[in-house]
Amino acid sequence: MAAHSGRADHAFPQAQRDAVYRAIHERRDVRAQFLADPIPPEVLARLLEAAHHAPSVGFMQPWDFLLIESLEVRRRVHGIFERENARAAENHDGERGQLYRRLKLEGILESPLNLCITCDRARGGEHVLGRNSIVDTDLFSTCLAVQNLWLSARAEGIGVGWVSILDQDELAQVLGLPDRVYPLAYLCLGYVSEFLEQPELARSGWRQRLPLGELVHGNGWGHPLVDEALQEALGEVDRP
Amino acid sequence: MAAHSGRADHAFPQAQRDAVYRAIHERRDVRAQFLADPIPPEVLARLLEAAHHAPSVGFMQPWDFLLIESLEVRRRVHGIFERENARAAENHDGERGQLYRRLKLEGILESPLNLCITCDRARGGEHVLGRNSIVDTDLFSTCLAVQNLWLSARAEGIGVGWVSILDQDELAQVLGLPDRVYPLAYLCLGYVSEFLEQPELARSGWRQRLPLGELVHGNGWGHPLVDEALQEALGEVDRP
Repeated sequence: MAAHSGRADHAFPQAQRDAVYRAIHERRDVRAQFLADPIPPEVLARLLEAAHHAPSVGFMQPWDFLLIESLEVRRRVHGIFERENARAAENHDGERGQLYRRLKLEGILESPLNLCITCDRARGGEHVLGRNSIVDTDLFSTCLAVQNLWLSARAEGIGVGWVSILDQDELAQVLGLPDRVYPLAYLCLGYVSEFLEQPELARSGWRQRLPLGELVHGNGWGHPLVDEALQEALGEVDRP
Repeated sequence: MAAHSGRADHAFPQAQRDAVYRAIHERRDVRAQFLADPIPPEVLARLLEAAHHAPSVGFMQPWDFLLIESLEVRRRVHGIFERENARAAENHDGERGQLYRRLKLEGILESPLNLCITCDRARGGEHVLGRNSIVDTDLFSTCLAVQNLWLSARAEGIGVGWVSILDQDELAQVLGLPDRVYPLAYLCLGYVSEFLEQPELARSGWRQRLPLGELVHGNGWGHPLVDEALQEALGEVDRP
């Protein structure tokens, strides 16, 4: 190993590191706490620009951003949600079914802004660098843009909720998307009355966070970690 | 609208917001700048814990983390890369082909640690809340974990590179993954000699960042923005 260690050279100062971790830990999937206050244009521009700085395979930047304020459009999307959710609820019986029906799963109409982040599957032409082995890397890249937006929104005090209970074909039709464009993420955005301390599904007893230590493997699936100090460190950082 | 505005209540202080945006803007897909210095266990634990705090559909947390230090395993993965990349290079002719062959696209052997983040497609059982309409939401959730790790790594001064030029079936075999587990992201991690100011593909002239304003639509695809102030704000925040 070279005498020079670059370790400390590029790390953020402690306070900045803490801020990044704060955004990660205090981010929530918001459904029920939206306020009607509009998001100022300069704040919204910062969020979109953060999303646009996500990594993408071959730098293809396959995303587009549809800002949906129209109540009429949102009502149509909400209708899609209601049909899909009624179908989904049938999968859960008894007490679990009752709990499912009590959960609030979207804020399409209460949030002041809906944002659809799409993936243009033809952007960058036929041969995108790095996309020859795994064609879905364009979808994966678009997800990374979603998370950039989600974290920067938390830093701005703005809640984001991802509505995944939607028929994507119907959604694409409502939004007038070309065939090549996939509506990857339908998000609700707005300031909030509070960010919950715990994810809503944990608080309601639906499902709890898994212990981190059980999810970490060594040099292959199920292999123990080589470094015992890491196993210990995983236990120390784990939080609910 | 209520007299009470919750806007300012939950936003981070300016310095913390700036730190989150700094991580987003200064994050790079690292291939060529890795140093051999090992990542201390407590730092690695923080990164994995940040990934584990990503949002996931139905709180299913489908991810696992394989920490690959073994040079033998990494050599086998590198072999998969070389075969796939030779095939990919054939898609690019002439000057473009020459440029492609000059690009360094992975740091599998030079980085001190490889990390495969997988997606267990059966976790959470048959009916995962929010996964009835779009079955790939488990893959999307795993991508969000990748981005949490990528951003926190940047704050720690650690570079991350995503190797997407791999045959996933061969990779799964090398890592001994069960059939239900998909190797979503194969990442190289390590401290770096520098973080480039621009993405490597922009710097090399392969592809440039798109103007943000061209990617933002109104209430449907191709619709103009309702808010002119937003169009102006988009131009102001845009950076290469």
